[in-house]
Amino acid sequence: MLPRMRERPVTCGLLGCGTVGGGVVRLLTRDPAKVTRRVGVPIEIRRVLVRDLGKARVPELDGRLLTTDASEVLDDPDIEMVIEVMGGAEPTLDHLMRAIDAKKGVVTANKLLLATAGKQLLERAQAAGVDLAFEGAVGGGVPIVRTLREALASDRVESITGIVNGTSNYVLTRMLDAGLSLDDAVAEAQARGYAEADPTMDVGGGDAAQKLSILAMLGFGAAADYADLHVEGIQAIAPIDHRFAERFAYRIKHLAIGRDHGDEVELRVHPCLLPQRSVLANVDGVLNAVTLTGEALGPCLVSGQGAGDLPTAVSVVSDALDVARSLVAGVAGLQTRAIAYEARPLRAMAAIETRYYIRFTVLDEPGVIAAIAGRLGDAGVSIEQLVQDGPRPEPGEPATVVMLTHRAREGAVQAALGALREATFMVEPARLLRIEEP
Amino acid sequence: MLPRMRERPVTCGLLGCGTVGGGVVRLLTRDPAKVTRRVGVPIEIRRVLVRDLGKARVPELDGRLLTTDASEVLDDPDIEMVIEVMGGAEPTLDHLMRAIDAKKGVVTANKLLLATAGKQLLERAQAAGVDLAFEGAVGGGVPIVRTLREALASDRVESITGIVNGTSNYVLTRMLDAGLSLDDAVAEAQARGYAEADPTMDVGGGDAAQKLSILAMLGFGAAADYADLHVEGIQAIAPIDHRFAERFAYRIKHLAIGRDHGDEVELRVHPCLLPQRSVLANVDGVLNAVTLTGEALGPCLVSGQGAGDLPTAVSVVSDALDVARSLVAGVAGLQTRAIAYEARPLRAMAAIETRYYIRFTVLDEPGVIAAIAGRLGDAGVSIEQLVQDGPRPEPGEPATVVMLTHRAREGAVQAALGALREATFMVEPARLLRIEEP
Repeated sequence: MLPRMRERPVTCGLLGCGTVGGGVVRLLTRDPAKVTRRVGVPIEIRRVLVRDLGKARVPELDGRLLTTDASEVLDDPDIEMVIEVMGGAEPTLDHLMRAIDAKKGVVTANKLLLATAGKQLLERAQAAGVDLAFEGAVGGGVPIVRTLREALASDRVESITGIVNGTSNYVLTRMLDAGLSLDDAVAEAQARGYAEADPTMDVGGGDAAQKLSILAMLGFGAAADYADLHVEGIQAIAPIDHRFAERFAYRIKHLAIGRDHGDEVELRVHPCLLPQRSVLANVDGVLNAVTLTGEALGPCLVSGQGAGDLPTAVSVVSDALDVARSLVAGVAGLQTRAIAYEARPLRAMAAIETRYYIRFTVLDEPGVIAAIAGRLGDAGVSIEQLVQDGPRPEPGEPATVVMLTHRAREGAVQAALGALREATFMVEPARLLRIEEP
Repeated sequence: MLPRMRERPVTCGLLGCGTVGGGVVRLLTRDPAKVTRRVGVPIEIRRVLVRDLGKARVPELDGRLLTTDASEVLDDPDIEMVIEVMGGAEPTLDHLMRAIDAKKGVVTANKLLLATAGKQLLERAQAAGVDLAFEGAVGGGVPIVRTLREALASDRVESITGIVNGTSNYVLTRMLDAGLSLDDAVAEAQARGYAEADPTMDVGGGDAAQKLSILAMLGFGAAADYADLHVEGIQAIAPIDHRFAERFAYRIKHLAIGRDHGDEVELRVHPCLLPQRSVLANVDGVLNAVTLTGEALGPCLVSGQGAGDLPTAVSVVSDALDVARSLVAGVAGLQTRAIAYEARPLRAMAAIETRYYIRFTVLDEPGVIAAIAGRLGDAGVSIEQLVQDGPRPEPGEPATVVMLTHRAREGAVQAALGALREATFMVEPARLLRIEEP
């Protein structure tokens, strides 16, 4: 006969209570019967760490729970679960380590921490036998961590491809739909609150690389430092690239791409051409979307708001209910222990194979196209389509030529472009975009 | 101090071992360490009910486990969980009821049973305190049940819109892409194994209605008999409708649509025009996709293979691991008890509001368009766009006129079309398609 379930509430402490934290409080308290139905017992918020006791908070929060002293959350033996929504690297990492060492379950929405110290946090949680849940850290309201976990329960994930940065996707969407320049689209995103004052992490691809490294750990069991990934942002995309892409029935999206090749893992982040009719090509604005392909499952796509306070709060609360259920059931740490990962060799970019879009700005002289095609051909890269833009340029003016290649090795393409760099007819370096066919 | 976790395996019996069942056996047995990592203990297949002992099975299955006697699964007190992959209504329902009464957890991929006896099965499982899991029953490899459950853990689901029948979606895709007639596209789907010999349930919308009634129960807590839903199939879609849809930058998709209005629930299944640039409009072939909109979460879309043996097996195994985890943790029935639903009034079709595409086949006489526009206007329906197809017809030949309306009440539109039915210039009844703007 199995033991009777406990009846006392699961107790939790919050680290931080900004807009995501306020959403968490609201969602946890507005329908306590629903929470009880799902967890078996109520969830009780015992203490909330904030920086400023005087700041206005959501009305659902009892002001007496506020404290500015982290140890009132971390050292209280009556708190079983810590929900971290304060963000930042320090002192947050230290707080989470202390919570784990005190055998508390941890829920976090902190992408930066996961990407930089995820392995460390996971190992510590696994050793302590507690849960570490982080759905909100990867894709806001996109339930990708959960979907990966379930797909992986019995299947093998072969690839993960996604639009994981809402800011970049918004910028590319506005460039295409409204004909904006990159700078104007970024400025618009900032004005609407979709981009930070310093948008480098988003527009430069760093944020997407952090997310990809977390997804690769979950999906492929590959511990990879995001600093080792090949990362390109969208800064070099020009309006003319959108026009050419449309002409070939493609759209430009910024993708995070991961493939498990068994011996090696391929992880790269860069803008791509995607067929207009593909689902990912139609995920617009600030939405995120991730396709995972399972050996048995086939393709499975999840899409939603990749950021935003309320969507993130929904993910955090889902995690909190999971962790609470495990605490009630006496199986704390089981889900987290199931995450297995190890260092895996990354595939070198030169070794990847795909199709390419290459835009050349060249002097309009006889023999130029033959010279380019010759160099590519020598490297084993064959051209599938070639288009020259607009009317014939005036003598001495540069011409724009775009080539789409058949599948080729990146190393061969780069070698050919390297050899062309010194050619007298090259007005500026060739622009290369990879083509993904889902 | 919480009790130590049990160490003996979770024991299960299979009802049926066709292609889905074979996939389940394979996924459960090929990496037992992975299963143990996720559940805490191994899962052991104890008995497998089949009709024919002599038939070849997957090599992973020990032939000594086979039986043709259902009671060897259902009456064995040592079997804790029953996985039903035999399909059909009888004796399957009876088997599942017996399993529930014997306090066994139940996993089923049987959509027909869920749609016809879901309420009965759930009530019985809730009363018995056992789990009833059915991810595989709704969308094959699309993790929609799980996503709904998690979104609902703290949020309110406002709407559910999806492509939930792969056969209809394949037929519409082939009509559009290859210019096939409906009959030819259906024949092709049958030749490829995507449609049954009798495709009525798929093409007629009945299958989609069953799935929508299950999703409405989970998402809105609304117990609705699928026979009460407004259901139209794709039989009346003509190639000309695809051409007009393209011209207006739409695509035709067969949708299941649910909205929770608080006082009433809107549930309907029919073909729709969707903007070409929307994600759902680009979900092609046999893929399924469902968008749910949560009050806090916003829109969240999940897509994948809606049918197929292996994707369905992945969903079934995910469910089996969940149920096994609950058995190990001593919280059997908790997830299932959290599903709350009640009878809710359905919104009448006449009361829904949307935009409309209406195709008229009329005699090419002066005053016809004025007469149609007048009738619509009298009913309060205003026209947004109007297009006449092709060259001016020969005298006496019918003309095709398509109108797109502004938002209007279905009742008003139907009243106007009813009044027009008797007009002498009407060559055939008007064809109406609703327009959805996600």
